[in-house]
Amino acid sequence: MQFHLNGFHGGDPRIAEPARRDGTGDDFDVLIVGSGPAGLTLAAQLSAFPDIRTRVIEQREERLVKGQADGIACRTVEMFEAFGFSEHAMREAYQVNETVFWKPDAANRRHISRTERIQDVEDGLSECPHLILNQARVHDYYLDVMRKSAARLEPDYSRRLLDLEVGGGDVPVTARIERCDPGHAGEVETIRARFVVGCDGARSAVRRSLDLPLRGDSANQAWGVMDVLAVTDFPDIRCKALIQSANEGNLLIIPREGGYLARLYIELDKLSPDERVAARNITPDHLVTAAQRILRPYTLDVKEITWWSVYEIGQRICDRFDNLPEDADETGIPRVFILGDACHTHSPKAGQGMNVSMQDGFNLGWKLAAVLRGQCTPALLRSYSAERRAIAQELIDFDRVLAKMFSAPAKDPDDPDSTGVDPEEFRRYFIQHGRYTAGVETHYTPCLITGPAGHQALATGFVIGKRFHSAPVIRLADAKPMQLGHTVKADGRWRLFAFTPAGDLTSPSSKIRALANWLAEDPDSPVRRFTPADADIDSVIDFRAVFQEPHRDLDIGDLPPLLLPAKGRYGLRDYEKVFCADRVAGNDIFTMRGIDRRNGCMVVVRPDQYVAHILPLNDYAALGEFFGRFMLEAG
Amino acid sequence: MQFHLNGFHGGDPRIAEPARRDGTGDDFDVLIVGSGPAGLTLAAQLSAFPDIRTRVIEQREERLVKGQADGIACRTVEMFEAFGFSEHAMREAYQVNETVFWKPDAANRRHISRTERIQDVEDGLSECPHLILNQARVHDYYLDVMRKSAARLEPDYSRRLLDLEVGGGDVPVTARIERCDPGHAGEVETIRARFVVGCDGARSAVRRSLDLPLRGDSANQAWGVMDVLAVTDFPDIRCKALIQSANEGNLLIIPREGGYLARLYIELDKLSPDERVAARNITPDHLVTAAQRILRPYTLDVKEITWWSVYEIGQRICDRFDNLPEDADETGIPRVFILGDACHTHSPKAGQGMNVSMQDGFNLGWKLAAVLRGQCTPALLRSYSAERRAIAQELIDFDRVLAKMFSAPAKDPDDPDSTGVDPEEFRRYFIQHGRYTAGVETHYTPCLITGPAGHQALATGFVIGKRFHSAPVIRLADAKPMQLGHTVKADGRWRLFAFTPAGDLTSPSSKIRALANWLAEDPDSPVRRFTPADADIDSVIDFRAVFQEPHRDLDIGDLPPLLLPAKGRYGLRDYEKVFCADRVAGNDIFTMRGIDRRNGCMVVVRPDQYVAHILPLNDYAALGEFFGRFMLEAG
Repeated sequence: MQFHLNGFHGGDPRIAEPARRDGTGDDFDVLIVGSGPAGLTLAAQLSAFPDIRTRVIEQREERLVKGQADGIACRTVEMFEAFGFSEHAMREAYQVNETVFWKPDAANRRHISRTERIQDVEDGLSECPHLILNQARVHDYYLDVMRKSAARLEPDYSRRLLDLEVGGGDVPVTARIERCDPGHAGEVETIRARFVVGCDGARSAVRRSLDLPLRGDSANQAWGVMDVLAVTDFPDIRCKALIQSANEGNLLIIPREGGYLARLYIELDKLSPDERVAARNITPDHLVTAAQRILRPYTLDVKEITWWSVYEIGQRICDRFDNLPEDADETGIPRVFILGDACHTHSPKAGQGMNVSMQDGFNLGWKLAAVLRGQCTPALLRSYSAERRAIAQELIDFDRVLAKMFSAPAKDPDDPDSTGVDPEEFRRYFIQHGRYTAGVETHYTPCLITGPAGHQALATGFVIGKRFHSAPVIRLADAKPMQLGHTVKADGRWRLFAFTPAGDLTSPSSKIRALANWLAEDPDSPVRRFTPADADIDSVIDFRAVFQEPHRDLDIGDLPPLLLPAKGRYGLRDYEKVFCADRVAGNDIFTMRGIDRRNGCMVVVRPDQYVAHILPLNDYAALGEFFGRFMLEAG
Repeated sequence: MQFHLNGFHGGDPRIAEPARRDGTGDDFDVLIVGSGPAGLTLAAQLSAFPDIRTRVIEQREERLVKGQADGIACRTVEMFEAFGFSEHAMREAYQVNETVFWKPDAANRRHISRTERIQDVEDGLSECPHLILNQARVHDYYLDVMRKSAARLEPDYSRRLLDLEVGGGDVPVTARIERCDPGHAGEVETIRARFVVGCDGARSAVRRSLDLPLRGDSANQAWGVMDVLAVTDFPDIRCKALIQSANEGNLLIIPREGGYLARLYIELDKLSPDERVAARNITPDHLVTAAQRILRPYTLDVKEITWWSVYEIGQRICDRFDNLPEDADETGIPRVFILGDACHTHSPKAGQGMNVSMQDGFNLGWKLAAVLRGQCTPALLRSYSAERRAIAQELIDFDRVLAKMFSAPAKDPDDPDSTGVDPEEFRRYFIQHGRYTAGVETHYTPCLITGPAGHQALATGFVIGKRFHSAPVIRLADAKPMQLGHTVKADGRWRLFAFTPAGDLTSPSSKIRALANWLAEDPDSPVRRFTPADADIDSVIDFRAVFQEPHRDLDIGDLPPLLLPAKGRYGLRDYEKVFCADRVAGNDIFTMRGIDRRNGCMVVVRPDQYVAHILPLNDYAALGEFFGRFMLEAG
């Protein structure tokens, strides 16, 4: 954490100075409808910018307290790190270390027996763990970020979107909102916004007003879910357990935070075509009884049901995630967006829903901020739907197979007529997709903000279009061992990491010195072109360098000025731009990420932590061209 | 973290249910005078017990915001972990990784040059880092713990202790307190307390009323200290740097949290005997100029002085740290205690003051709680002064040498007549005492609560009387890699760790099973004797086991019931009592801590994380005798 740049301020450095701002009546930059994971990620991101005026409305009367999603993929914890609360989540959450598989016992198929334990996350996939935590607590973390931001942003509860209309002009969207809190019920408020974002779930009012249908089907398989405090002799109650019984259905156990709570997903009867699960009048007792039957010979004594629900599995998706008509020309700017369940729904089995929704919010957040702040062309906003719809479609395809396997009985190896899924095949599919469910396989294709793969060979472990895969480094100025990826905070800035050739700093033909000087001084440099004159030199593009040499072999005095930039009102030096490879065995970032040691390279990282481009250290023209595609000259 | 034991509660699990308690007027269990590091550690510890009524008074008008101490030793971060905020401190603080030494340059003694860099904390010394952070933020963390506790404890500011008197009866201490807040200034309040604790600094009113002088001398060496935001070309401004100049004095640089701030300790002129530094009218400009002279050839441009002070070095200590008369017999119970600067003062150079004061508070806190809650005999309270005075005396002896070296000029190797300290000798002394300054060398001698070293050979790495040195383990139920020491929370409980022989769990002559069953069932078992009938079985002595086997080789079903205890109103099983050695190379706790693999052992750990005893797994009699010395039968 960096603070005190413009003078000492006592107290919690996470609490920003409140922004001074002129009242602008009922006009907002962004209206966010819904305060679930997508809406709150977006709101927390926008709250980092005191100059952006955001409003969040939420139909619920107050913050969520329990239930709903709970899976937090490694990739999401990496994002939490960018928002500054990963360590809170890690202390509080359940950490998934192993997944266990159970199937019908060969000797007695009315009983279950364990077939295998596997490591849940493969080594080296992420520096962050796979967590399970009440969605409500994730909300709380974001609400805390918002509350401590300069904008002091809080959702307005008990407010329901009636409809919205997109007109012309600079503030084109008009939304009508109805209050539903006692004493104000029925009051209608009209507000105008530059952009409106629907994060209002599967029954999204924003989607409805865009007239965008969710396409796909509701499968006729019902499932129940409940969070319980229970006593059991099932030995894997504190591991993620996938259980296939012979005739009683399937069960997924997800241990939960706090050491005692567990979530059970329980397969229920097949539904008739067009039948809705609500019509079955399923009670919690049904769920408990079903779980008890599946778990035999183990007992399950449920002491408290904290939350429960029943649902049908369905995979549905919108054709687009914004309001741009199909026939819009290149100048068209989307003004309304939909995120999360509002535009894609699927089963909760793979624990992806909340994660993908939050990544929707993270993807859109910095883009909206960059456009609203005049840093980037509005065309940037078209990439949200393009990028995130492809990801949602992948998830739906994955979920369709997984959910079907989950809902099939275990095939009996001794019975050639037995239908169902071979437990071994199920296990294989699950393991095979471990990287996917960890959230690290998201791969954006080349577009306005993602370069071509021409120089991918310079750093094979930083895949263009995938998230920047962190690795350990040593910070030069204070010898601190740390994760390089954790320098990428949710602050809307681009990162430019220069990985240097061996011996480069003191070489007469130093590439890092030449690059740093070009960035700092050349009129064509993107740092010069796109950074406002009165802003810190790293406020738009944050340039950092990583050296191969051990940190004790480098001299700070040899660094070019841009790597020790003067910042803030005092011109204090920022000493946190330069890193060295960690010499501990197995920890060398150059080896871990396949970086060309002879030539080095530049790695451009987006504000949402994705690798945007890889270039040779001296390809200034390509670097300038890349940023010039979407950034606007400052001032 | 464990929570939801007695039913699901939404929201932050760190926030306890407020305690319901009957008003008892002006009588308190404990009155804490002063809210510095010692007082707040004690208050935070006591706030864990809703049945204890504590009051904290503080002369300042509000919480501290800046200045004072900033060094946080590894051992202190271990304690922060027990209080649940180590990760906050680690995110926010500066982490000391290397210490650098500078001395007069051989070629030009008017300049300084770097002689060496050393790793600040030796490998394996602690799982926690050495941190630097504003004392005020440490206060804030404790205040947050207190605020979220069931007791909802807050200090009362603007209150000054006038005097106190110790009488007889159950609530023997009467204190007179004067308010100094506007509108109430001069109002005097009288309160009664079972115990009073003076954490009120070097000019302690509590010490004065006990008539205990601080003995020792004020050295005639003046130092200045200032926290600055500055621009410099000194390359080690972000490392802890010890600088000896030839003729300009010495300087100690401590980088600070946030990336920009630094603390400078600057040697000033010698004082005449009996001269006080205050008489010198030293200004911040003097300090800046002195630092600039010492740093030559480097420049120092100070932009903001956040805080500054001047002081003399002095080492002083009280004869005892409580009000028990020298001639008190065995039944005497101390009723008034003094902690921290109130009973020992020294130079700030080694960064020990705040740490030792907090450990004073941690040492006394659980003892007061155990006596007030009827768990332990009041004789336990005599161990506070005995244990902590010895530690304070050690610190003073260390500091006397260190401070003298700090204040001496660097000896000129080319000048046989040169006086002063050889930089090489200084460096050696500093390195040699690295374990001491990390806070891990505190070693309590055998007493009521520290057993003899007869069985030390069973676990050579858990030194009886020293802090329980954490090591990695894998939790059996969920395969979580974690630190065993982090199970020792600041909750007043004793821990009994059983390290088992290989193959023991399934052996017919299983020692762990026999021990667990004896603990759970035998009338002589300390668990049976000292745990109240209506309390959880682990609420007084928390029994845990560590196995040598890989976690996948053990079956939870084989565990004795005490290692899977039923707790709370639902009888939910606690799955967090059993651990296995971590098979990652170098991480096996049995090897790391020299545990006898053939025989195993029991390690008894105090509520303040110190090793109290080591015994063979089957020495039930000695275990019972140990606890029987100071614990009281429940009910």
